Amino acid sequence: MGACNTFSNMKSLNLDSIRESLIRQEDTIIFSLIERSQFPMNSPVYTPALASTLPSSKSLLHFIVNQSETIQSQAGRYESPEEHPFFPDNLPSSLLPQYNHPQILHPTAAAININKTIWDVYVKQLLPLFTAEGDDGNYVPTATSDLQCLQAISRRIHYGKFVAEVKYLDAPEDYAPAIRAQDRDALMKLLTFESVEEMLKRRVEKKAKVFAQEVSLNVVDQKEKYKIDPSLLPLLYGEWIMPLTKLVEVEYLLKRLD
Amino acid sequence: MGACNTFSNMKSLNLDSIRESLIRQEDTIIFSLIERSQFPMNSPVYTPALASTLPSSKSLLHFIVNQSETIQSQAGRYESPEEHPFFPDNLPSSLLPQYNHPQILHPTAAAININKTIWDVYVKQLLPLFTAEGDDGNYVPTATSDLQCLQAISRRIHYGKFVAEVKYLDAPEDYAPAIRAQDRDALMKLLTFESVEEMLKRRVEKKAKVFAQEVSLNVVDQKEKYKIDPSLLPLLYGEWIMPLTKLVEVEYLLKRLD
Repeated sequence: MGACNTFSNMKSLNLDSIRESLIRQEDTIIFSLIERSQFPMNSPVYTPALASTLPSSKSLLHFIVNQSETIQSQAGRYESPEEHPFFPDNLPSSLLPQYNHPQILHPTAAAININKTIWDVYVKQLLPLFTAEGDDGNYVPTATSDLQCLQAISRRIHYGKFVAEVKYLDAPEDYAPAIRAQDRDALMKLLTFESVEEMLKRRVEKKAKVFAQEVSLNVVDQKEKYKIDPSLLPLLYGEWIMPLTKLVEVEYLLKRLD
Repeated sequence: MGACNTFSNMKSLNLDSIRESLIRQEDTIIFSLIERSQFPMNSPVYTPALASTLPSSKSLLHFIVNQSETIQSQAGRYESPEEHPFFPDNLPSSLLPQYNHPQILHPTAAAININKTIWDVYVKQLLPLFTAEGDDGNYVPTATSDLQCLQAISRRIHYGKFVAEVKYLDAPEDYAPAIRAQDRDALMKLLTFESVEEMLKRRVEKKAKVFAQEVSLNVVDQKEKYKIDPSLLPLLYGEWIMPLTKLVEVEYLLKRLD
């Protein structure tokens, strides 16, 4: 029934397969935001006070994310070029036999990780926009929901590496001069398609209207009540996801000819 | 925007608040199944071979769930009477200051945990119904999606404890004779409302039709393609979730007067 849209099982990289994956990842991001919105802000999750009894953690969220990444790293998560840890320092190696992930990206791609920025945007700017004020004590379910949101958004933004690679392969003659000149502005201009971005923002808002609905057997009044405000999605994509994806694309391209 | 439906922030227990929580949990279960369905079956996740290099684990899923529960237990997850670990043996205590969860249930409730049954049903019966055959190597994202499904289904089924408590408080004179007689069949009969169960099955199928849609800006043909077959939901609820919830209710009531 399901079909995986990742590159691990793809024979070749092309714009259609990337587009399909990016569109599917929108659903994951919207689901994860809806799930997080069940809980109020629960601000103790993000402050040092509650974490003072947890080993080397700045917050409960830091503890949950860092420890979960440790486990998942042992199980091989970060062997995939699609995955990026939030706390890459001192992560243990995979304990599993190596899985043969296809090598699609230029080797310099591995060094690009903007999760620190994504973390700050998520905690400081995004969370207050879609959670109610308050504290219900559900700190671990809150932090694990945050982990889902962070991983989904990080995955989407770092897909910029694959987007950049396929765009480069499609028209190296357009990109090579700007890369050789190390001209960020020229690269950003080459990567920006305003009409595509507008369409994307309309699509994620439409998806949020569908997925955030309160569905009941009663037909009356069910359409206009949403678990998250659908306008959050075009804002999230327009202000953060698309600009940060393009930042990843530019960083990737700048080293594409190294 | 969101409002938490758990008891942690409730002043009192009543059928309306329970019903609201159960209905909201349907969405979480459907989202988690849709997310898991992105990946094919990935059978190595469930077998001992791949886990032979992981410490004391019967499978990669066992490793991910057991280790995640260890972290989440340290962060206080299982202090909540709504949460039940799959591997309760040797779980570490919470390192956080105690949160004052309201004591609603009879003390014997803590001993009721049917996660072993839920695990078997999920891995052996449910997974093959909604995942495609195949192996794409995304083992950790697969196992973490499984963890989400397992936790959501477990939470829903063990809510039977709260359902039973409120039903008992509502009509102790109906339940007490069957409890004193330790009559499981009589209790099961008291807890069964076929018309409610039919309505629930229709509702979860309707929700799945909404949430599993492929949404695009193109209006044509978007309604009839689903990420998971909506008929999976009435099957899951009718065959497993509702019977196992009632099993939890009966187990709870049998000891309600101890």
